[in-house]
Order: sequence, then C-alpha cells, then structure tokens
Amino acid sequence: MADAFAYEVVSAPRADCGPRVGRLTTPHGVVDTPAFIPVGTRATVKGVLPETLRQVGVQMVLANTYHLALRPGADVVRDLGGLHAMMAWDGPILTDSGGFQVFSLAALRKVTDEGVTFRNHIDGAEMTLTPESAIAIENDLGADVIMALDVCPPFPAPRSEVEEAVRLTLGWAERSRAAHRRRDQALWCIVQGGVHRDLREACAAKLVAMDFPGYAIGGVSVGEGHDRLREVVGCTVPLLPWTRPRYLMGVGEPRDVVASARAGVDLFDCVLPTRNGRNGCAFTADGMIRLRNEAYRTDAGPIEEDCDCPTCRHFSRGTLRHLVMSQELLAPILLSVHNLRFYTRLFERLRAAIRDGRFDAEAQGLLDRYYQND
Amino acid sequence: MADAFAYEVVSAPRADCGPRVGRLTTPHGVVDTPAFIPVGTRATVKGVLPETLRQVGVQMVLANTYHLALRPGADVVRDLGGLHAMMAWDGPILTDSGGFQVFSLAALRKVTDEGVTFRNHIDGAEMTLTPESAIAIENDLGADVIMALDVCPPFPAPRSEVEEAVRLTLGWAERSRAAHRRRDQALWCIVQGGVHRDLREACAAKLVAMDFPGYAIGGVSVGEGHDRLREVVGCTVPLLPWTRPRYLMGVGEPRDVVASARAGVDLFDCVLPTRNGRNGCAFTADGMIRLRNEAYRTDAGPIEEDCDCPTCRHFSRGTLRHLVMSQELLAPILLSVHNLRFYTRLFERLRAAIRDGRFDAEAQGLLDRYYQND
Repeated sequence: MADAFAYEVVSAPRADCGPRVGRLTTPHGVVDTPAFIPVGTRATVKGVLPETLRQVGVQMVLANTYHLALRPGADVVRDLGGLHAMMAWDGPILTDSGGFQVFSLAALRKVTDEGVTFRNHIDGAEMTLTPESAIAIENDLGADVIMALDVCPPFPAPRSEVEEAVRLTLGWAERSRAAHRRRDQALWCIVQGGVHRDLREACAAKLVAMDFPGYAIGGVSVGEGHDRLREVVGCTVPLLPWTRPRYLMGVGEPRDVVASARAGVDLFDCVLPTRNGRNGCAFTADGMIRLRNEAYRTDAGPIEEDCDCPTCRHFSRGTLRHLVMSQELLAPILLSVHNLRFYTRLFERLRAAIRDGRFDAEAQGLLDRYYQND
Repeated sequence: MADAFAYEVVSAPRADCGPRVGRLTTPHGVVDTPAFIPVGTRATVKGVLPETLRQVGVQMVLANTYHLALRPGADVVRDLGGLHAMMAWDGPILTDSGGFQVFSLAALRKVTDEGVTFRNHIDGAEMTLTPESAIAIENDLGADVIMALDVCPPFPAPRSEVEEAVRLTLGWAERSRAAHRRRDQALWCIVQGGVHRDLREACAAKLVAMDFPGYAIGGVSVGEGHDRLREVVGCTVPLLPWTRPRYLMGVGEPRDVVASARAGVDLFDCVLPTRNGRNGCAFTADGMIRLRNEAYRTDAGPIEEDCDCPTCRHFSRGTLRHLVMSQELLAPILLSVHNLRFYTRLFERLRAAIRDGRFDAEAQGLLDRYYQND
C-alpha cells in the first residue's frame, strides 16, 4: 500500500475479532468505519449534488467500472480529469471491477482463463474484460480504491461453477496486481465462494497469502437471503487480517448491515437509499414508509422528527407526497437526500455503540424498532 | 395595497417612461426589478432546491393556480401551511389566476359572464372557475402577489373573440377585487386585448381607473412573435401608472425581455431556463448550446468561463454531456441551475445598464452576441 493509504482500528471491544471502529486513510481523505458508501453508478449519485453528499455525512462514494467503461468510456473520464473531477467530489472514491455487472447485466458471457467476453446491455456490442484491461480502465477512472476483476456466480449455482469462479478469481487477483500501475490507488481483492464455507475459506486464505491492502466479500446480495449472507460473512471475516479494511459488496439492508458490522465488516455499498428514494420511499427508524400513502396528504410533519437532513428540516410529508404524486424532479432528490442521511446516521450510531461497548444492545433496539411491522 | 407592499422606482434615465430600476416590497421581502421570476408550476421549480434558487440570485418565484387547484388541491396547500411552507421558500411568491392554463390546457371550455367551465387535463373532470373561486383558491395558496382571473384568447383569434375576452376580463377584475380577503396578499389585474392596439388601450385604461396595485400584460407569448409582442408592450405600458409594477406574463426569450424592459416592464416569468435545462440545453452569452453535441465529449471547460453558478464552478461540459446522454437526474438539475443563473445575471446587467444610463448600448451588445448565429 502506498504511503497515502492507511487503515487503523480505532476502537474494538474485543482485541482481534468482532465489531470495530476504524479509520481508512486515502489520498482524498479519511473514512470513518463502519461506513456506508453511496453508489454513483455513472459518476453521479443519482439526483444528489456532491455538496449535499458532504452535508449529510457521506465520506466515500462508489462508481461502477462496467457502466463507465461503456459510457462515456474510460478514456473520456481520464480526459475529463478522472472521476474526482467529473463527480466534483474531492473525497475518497471506490470503483468496483465490473465483474458483478458483467455477470448480472451482460448477455452471452463466455468465461475463459484469459477473461470474460460478453455483449453489453446497452447496444449489445461484444466486449472483453480481462484482469489487465479492468485495471487499465480503473487506472484511467482514477478512484482511490480499485477492485480486482472477479467472477461472481449467481445464487443458486452448482458447486462446480462456484469452484471454477474461485479458481479464476484467485488467478485474476494475482494478474490484477501485476497489471496495477498507480501508487495513488489501492488495489483490493474480492473473496468469492458462494454459500460454501470451505470455498470461502480457501479463497480467503489464498488471497490473504497474496497480501492485499484491503479485502472485499463479493458474490453476496444475489438472492441468498439474510441467514446465508450472515453465515458467509461470519465464516469469511475471521480469516481476513485484522489490520486490513473489509468491504461487503452491495449490501445495505439494515439487518444485513448490522449483522455484518457485528462480524467486523468496515465498508458497505448499496443502491437502496437512492433507489428507494426514486420510488417514493423513505427510510425511518420505524421502518420504510411509502410517501404515496393517502395518510400523508395533509401531514405537515417531516419524514422523521429528529432527522437533521435538509429534507426533514424544510419539507413536510404532505409536500413530499404531492411531489411524488406529481412526479416532480424534487421528489427523488429530496427522498434520496433523506435516505442517505438515514444511512449515515445509522452508521454513526453503530460506530458510537462500538466505541461505547454496547453494540449488541444498540443493534437489537435498532432492529426491533426498524422491523416492528415485519 | 396593504402597508407591507410597496413599489418604488429607484432609477430611470427618463422621468416617467422607458426602462427603470425598481424595488418591489412584499411581506416576504424585496424584489429588485426588472426581475426574472422562475416558474414553480406545482409548488416546485423543477429540479432546483430553494436554497439553490437563493444561491443563483432568484428573489421571487411563481406557482400555477390551475395546477395546484387540481393537485394537491388548494385546501391541501392551505393545510400544509400555504405555498411558502410547501416550497420551503420564504421569499416573495406570485400565483397566476389559472386563466392561461384553462385556455391552453383544458378541454371543452364554456365561458359565460359567470366564469369558465372546462374539463381538466388530468382526469377530464368538469370544473368551474369564477373570479371569486379563483381568488378563494389564491387566498388559500397564500402567495404575496395574486392575479385576477382573466380570459386569454389564442393567437390568431377573431377580433370579436378578443373584444369579448376584454369585456369579461374587465368585469372579472372588478369582481376579483370584491372577493379578495387577505390584506397580506396584493391583487394585480391583467390587461388583455390581443394584438389590437385599441383593445389593449381600452382595457388598460379601464383597469387603471379601477386602481390596482400592480398591472400585468397577459395574452402574449401565445404565438404572436417578437414584433407583435413588442408592439403590444409598446402601446400598453405607457398607459400603466409609472408608480405601479408592471408584469409581462410568460415572456422570457432574451430579445423579448430586452425589448420589454426597454419599454418599462418590471417583472417577467418564463419556463425557458428550466424547460431547456431538462432538454439538455444551456444558455450562454453566445447563444444556447446543446450539451448532446459530440463536440463537448472531452470538453473539460465549464458552460461559461465567467459564470459563478455552482454548475459552472464544479462541472465540465464533458461531464454534463455524459450526464445528459445517460439521462441522469443530475443533468436537468445542473443545467436548470446554470440557466437560472444565466437569467438572473442577464437581469443584473440590465439593471446596472439602466442605472448607468447605457441601456441601449448594453442591450444591443448583449443581443448581437446572443443571436450571433441566428
């Protein structure tokens, strides 16, 4: 890891396992972990200005390599000054490897040792992504943290398919590291292995032996459900070095976040706050609410009384309902802003609870209240 | 006019005609005129947060009575605290009378002395708007300046139809005044008369005799074109009291704005900056540009080098092109913000030129440059 990067555990109730508060340092600043990373797929967190991201406590954002490689193209991003310039975001950025999208969005995939050939989901053109080309793209995009190309099997999948995914992911991690050129970017690897404990363990062990500066758990949030996700995280995290950041890809459902933070995960990314915001839904401590509900028609109160976000400080549920019903642009904007603040507040509470040695009680109270109507 | 309202001419090269800089005072603050009023049809300037409106120099916003009466309903707006609360905008607000929309959007209109019956454009339900009901709605909405219900004929229209529109508009102005209840709202009237000088003059004279605190010129921007608009404004404005604000409804094309400000118009509203922003277009001193243009693909410069808006300070043409092409929410947001700033800057220049006694030279230079490619 280059000098500009560091990760340190700031506070942990137990010496070397379980939940921890950490500090990830990058060339573009610090991230207090556990942290939520909003998704800015095409170099924009949908509908939210970068100054507003700061305002609601966001410290790091994610952009998707697959989408940006297609449009506008990695060369265009590079010519426009890289992702930080394009996004007008001077904080830390992370790019994924494109693997997840290739295996979920693209068609006619053919995977070989060399890489993966597919037809993209926009114009159907044939493209090839190799560990080397993914790194070249990510070097052009210029994020602080970049991910190695991996193979992400669906769920369920035959064990043989998951074994092959692990084999390829391991080989590609090694090649990614050899191809990586920029010392101002940290290259992290991804643990695969599906829901198979032995495959997760084998994959993690081999990646740890390669000594990456950060480790992600991939191949989750593909339909395996809360219990299996928890098992996967529970068996994988203890194998990862205590001194390195751990990132659970694509996970954001509150119960998944809480269980994984308890296991010692540091970073989470998820589209839920912005996607649900665009669908007229708002997160609250008492569960998600649908602003379309007739009950909010003349409700002059905010989404959440104790929320300090710009939406809750200025707009009522009634107004938000009107904006949602009228399909006004301000609706997804205001709801996404609140939902992002809901997530950053959730993580602030988790960090405080870890520091104060009361994680389990806090987590229980929080989940009991959030899922009270489930 | 209640005490909280005032209009004073601050600076004018000629004593009682031609362009002037003024100051309109309302219960929610001051508007420096000539001023541009962005349109917030459904209680939101599409895609722009109220704090951003302030940031780009907007002082007053407009909302549409017709749209709000349909959805969410004037009673709901009232129950939610009125337009200022709903829009989270503590500055001056103006509502139109609904007349323009009834005559442009609604179907199966039947106009009588009593009022106008129509089927609304949303669910086709039959509704009636009378001068009294329009005022009742506007009282509920709670804007600082409200407009009397008028009859807005199309262009072209038979002279007899325009004569009838003037007759009804005059009678309705009188009845609107009798119906108006709130002393914290100023009721302005609207001059109709199509492109007929004698009808405009007759209508203006009779409305002036009724002594309203503000006068609008309506029935323009309906396809009559720049030259006819200029004639209408040129013959109507001199008949309006020098000591009262004059408002040209729905006008925003730069050449129309400049010609009308020269004639002594104080207020303008128009959807152009936000509508064009949503269509991927940006106003510049050198004319409008289409961000979809391939030429901007790797253009790392801002829309306008000398613009101080948040969009120009942070986002390049290349990034904006990418956001437009990707149909990202941030595209209409960022372009609307810039376009609103283009308009407030245009008006700042006009006001400065009037104060400095160089309106004609400034106007000529400005239009020559803006329309250089026409």
